Amino acid sequence: MARSRAPRQGPGRPRRPVAPEKGFTLGQVAAAVGGRVHGDDGTRLTGVATLDTAGPGDLSWVADDRRERDAKSSRAGALLVPDARLSADTPCVVVASPQLALSIWLASLHPEEKTPAGAARGSFVHRSVRLGAGASVAAGATVEKGARIGARTRVRAGAFIGAEAEVGADSVVGPGAAVMARCKVGDRCILQPGAVVGSDGFGYVWDGQGHRKVPQVGIARLEDDVEIGANATVDRATLGETVIGRGTKVDNLVQVGHNVTVGAHSILCGQAGIGGSSRLGRGVTLAGQVGVSDHATIGDGAVVTGQAGIARQGRVEAGQIVSGMPALPHREFLKRAALVGKLEAALARISALEAALAKLEKGGPPWSSGSEKS
Amino acid sequence: MARSRAPRQGPGRPRRPVAPEKGFTLGQVAAAVGGRVHGDDGTRLTGVATLDTAGPGDLSWVADDRRERDAKSSRAGALLVPDARLSADTPCVVVASPQLALSIWLASLHPEEKTPAGAARGSFVHRSVRLGAGASVAAGATVEKGARIGARTRVRAGAFIGAEAEVGADSVVGPGAAVMARCKVGDRCILQPGAVVGSDGFGYVWDGQGHRKVPQVGIARLEDDVEIGANATVDRATLGETVIGRGTKVDNLVQVGHNVTVGAHSILCGQAGIGGSSRLGRGVTLAGQVGVSDHATIGDGAVVTGQAGIARQGRVEAGQIVSGMPALPHREFLKRAALVGKLEAALARISALEAALAKLEKGGPPWSSGSEKS
Amino acid sequence: MARSRAPRQGPGRPRRPVAPEKGFTLGQVAAAVGGRVHGDDGTRLTGVATLDTAGPGDLSWVADDRRERDAKSSRAGALLVPDARLSADTPCVVVASPQLALSIWLASLHPEEKTPAGAARGSFVHRSVRLGAGASVAAGATVEKGARIGARTRVRAGAFIGAEAEVGADSVVGPGAAVMARCKVGDRCILQPGAVVGSDGFGYVWDGQGHRKVPQVGIARLEDDVEIGANATVDRATLGETVIGRGTKVDNLVQVGHNVTVGAHSILCGQAGIGGSSRLGRGVTLAGQVGVSDHATIGDGAVVTGQAGIARQGRVEAGQIVSGMPALPHREFLKRAALVGKLEAALARISALEAALAKLEKGGPPWSSGSEKS
Repeated sequence: MARSRAPRQGPGRPRRPVAPEKGFTLGQVAAAVGGRVHGDDGTRLTGVATLDTAGPGDLSWVADDRRERDAKSSRAGALLVPDARLSADTPCVVVASPQLALSIWLASLHPEEKTPAGAARGSFVHRSVRLGAGASVAAGATVEKGARIGARTRVRAGAFIGAEAEVGADSVVGPGAAVMARCKVGDRCILQPGAVVGSDGFGYVWDGQGHRKVPQVGIARLEDDVEIGANATVDRATLGETVIGRGTKVDNLVQVGHNVTVGAHSILCGQAGIGGSSRLGRGVTLAGQVGVSDHATIGDGAVVTGQAGIARQGRVEAGQIVSGMPALPHREFLKRAALVGKLEAALARISALEAALAKLEKGGPPWSSGSEKS
Repeated sequence: MARSRAPRQGPGRPRRPVAPEKGFTLGQVAAAVGGRVHGDDGTRLTGVATLDTAGPGDLSWVADDRRERDAKSSRAGALLVPDARLSADTPCVVVASPQLALSIWLASLHPEEKTPAGAARGSFVHRSVRLGAGASVAAGATVEKGARIGARTRVRAGAFIGAEAEVGADSVVGPGAAVMARCKVGDRCILQPGAVVGSDGFGYVWDGQGHRKVPQVGIARLEDDVEIGANATVDRATLGETVIGRGTKVDNLVQVGHNVTVGAHSILCGQAGIGGSSRLGRGVTLAGQVGVSDHATIGDGAVVTGQAGIARQGRVEAGQIVSGMPALPHREFLKRAALVGKLEAALARISALEAALAKLEKGGPPWSSGSEKS
Repeated sequence: MARSRAPRQGPGRPRRPVAPEKGFTLGQVAAAVGGRVHGDDGTRLTGVATLDTAGPGDLSWVADDRRERDAKSSRAGALLVPDARLSADTPCVVVASPQLALSIWLASLHPEEKTPAGAARGSFVHRSVRLGAGASVAAGATVEKGARIGARTRVRAGAFIGAEAEVGADSVVGPGAAVMARCKVGDRCILQPGAVVGSDGFGYVWDGQGHRKVPQVGIARLEDDVEIGANATVDRATLGETVIGRGTKVDNLVQVGHNVTVGAHSILCGQAGIGGSSRLGRGVTLAGQVGVSDHATIGDGAVVTGQAGIARQGRVEAGQIVSGMPALPHREFLKRAALVGKLEAALARISALEAALAKLEKGGPPWSSGSEKS
């Protein structure tokens, strides 16, 4: 295939994106995304690319007015636009949200792979397991006693489903991902490679000789439409459940501690971590590498910016944007950073004041002695 | 089972915890944890739950006096308490440490799963491997040439034990976890899913054309009673050993670099990272997302708070508590944060002083010109 | 073997490193590393160890003059030195770079393991897969339809190679590591255990009801001589490619987002994270736990120090060293930290000035009232 023969290039140079096998027309795009064609709806295209990398055979998209210049200079053969004006003479499809239209069209170009239903040769599926219609378990994967796999769900190579665990319908458990015993995964969930759902929570009690493990007998439960990133980890609860709410998306290498509750439609970005028993509301955003300590509470729609830290039992109010460690309202964080930038000048001003005052008083008074050197 | 039929609930709502198959009496609890019953020792219970989620069929616990109000308002059928006074009329078992009693009782309710001894069909165990009595290797797991697995140790699905590696007795190597060649894992150790022990250290030397790999020919060694979290990584030493001391617990996604030594009974919380050749003492605590750079030294019993950073060759004295990046004694860290909060007012005071002095001197002197704008 | 019988020791105690099966002479070392022998080139040695742990049977090395004292006090039987003077009477080999000589010699002592060529019993290799000469696929590993594995490349136990993925020659895909569909890995690359190349990028668009997944149809591509650490993750591009440049080394638990480009010979240390579409130049160093947000640009040879954060669309110029969050030039970062340390004294000086001025003016004027308490 063309992409296999693509010459090696140094990093940083733009390159043509992966192209689908056969072409398509702009009319097909408009029909699929529910948009209006301006220009020739017979325009033939073979791929999808960003404005800067697109060629005459590519469909591209213009997110909004700020991309107008890039749109004008793009070599794309056709565009998805919010307003025909943005495409000049290039054939286009007008839609409310070009990004949404793009993802709809990409999905239609790249349908989910089909895998032959059932347990593949080389998979290890306990006879008590209930496999839904069209569900598949790949070679090297294990599904333990009493587990249930929903219809059309794909358990991929080397994945692990523990005893009595439940995975809903139309979900994907990626290569090497694990759903531990008794944990629950909803419908249309995706576990990226190496994701772990239901590892033991980090709970110990000192017994005089050492840290004695507190048995972690609860579960982890993912509601529907949850995605868990590659090598991310969600601990099971000590008692009860760790819950990731419906539609919440969790990026790679994120850690979710035991008994945590994350509300629906939240976004946890790469390498964020949440300590035990914390509660996040709906539509919360944790940016990359954010740390939320134990027993914290984060309200609906709150945003914690990159690398910020929420203290033990800390509170972030609904809708608040916080930054820094310890976390402050974002404005206050920026203001303080700016003020620290004025510190050197401020110390100089203090020294100048001391000198001037000393002059007025004829000779440096004791209170300023040496303080300029401090 | 009840827990399989539990209805879906939105996040944030308390729910009844997972219950064991059959019930138990308060007398059985007292006998198991070595406590004294107040009230009817025939009280029948079916589960264990937190004070706020417990129902009449549940055993709960009261950590200390601060939970007295919650204890009074709890619907729990019985309580583990440090003092009978805390349970009012609810039947209770009095013990020195309710948490310890809780974990003892949970362990007795949920005994370690037994797996059929030996190498399961679909496992790949080299003929030279020595499997201890009662040890098991699950389907999809690999144990390479010359490795030794101790008595009753469980190597779970898809796990990897490299050539000449040694795992002690009564340990668990979780699904997809790896113990690389020649590394050593002690007795009663637990590797959570995806944990890696003995990956190559990150060592290179520039050879004029590129970063040339320094062969990592040492090993990683876990002493007895060590637990390694899900997808956590412990690198092997360049030469010699990387060592995790007896009873030390390592949380998910923690990184331990090559040639690091961690003393006994330490706690490394989620996503903490330790650079090469650093030495941690006994009973050290690294909170979540702490970063310890290369060649640092952290004394016995020291505590590094969340997201703090210890510099290259940095030192934390025994028993010290440090915070921030660069790390400072915790008190100093808090003080500085508070002082920065006074910066805006301080700059206003400086401007006021300049104005007042200028007045005294009849007209602004050169040294203050513009400085208010700085 | 000796190393298997090594007695358990407490952490922190130096110990003899792992020794090769049979001994060697200093002359053999000199020949292998291209150095000049001082003293008896027949000196027999059995191992390699650091200066402090080496015994009479060990070869050690002296990096530079700063190690002179350690060199004199070392019990090593022979030394690799940049200058004969540093070894006193100990037999030595003089080389330009002792570290480079060390890694050359260690490599010769510990040659790459050979594995029998071909697909092992218990591996799952699609009949369409092209396996290069001498390439091997271990038990429990899966290679999907249309993938290509280069000559002498080792796909280890439980590893996953997706459909149409390509791995070059002389590479190693470690236990449980994954190269997802259509992704490309160059020659002489190493994927440590659990590394994931080509997981889906974290891209969603709100569709009115929820976060709709943007299909990630691009690939991830590793150029030649790249190493990816244990459980590190490299996301595939939404469109086009995520690229890790030739000779770049990536440590454990690092996250590389979709459409990121990393130049050649860069170093990404443990737990660093890079957001989507950011571009790193050649020879960039990200220290441990560094966070680079989306759409940032980092110039050739730049260094970002530990735990520093680069903002969205942030820029670091070529050769610059930056620290802190938000990141500042390293000097400025240190200066500000020092200035904050003077804040308490500065506030005292302001109060003293206010008191003195008030005295001059006979009685506290309104502008200072209360401000000392602020």
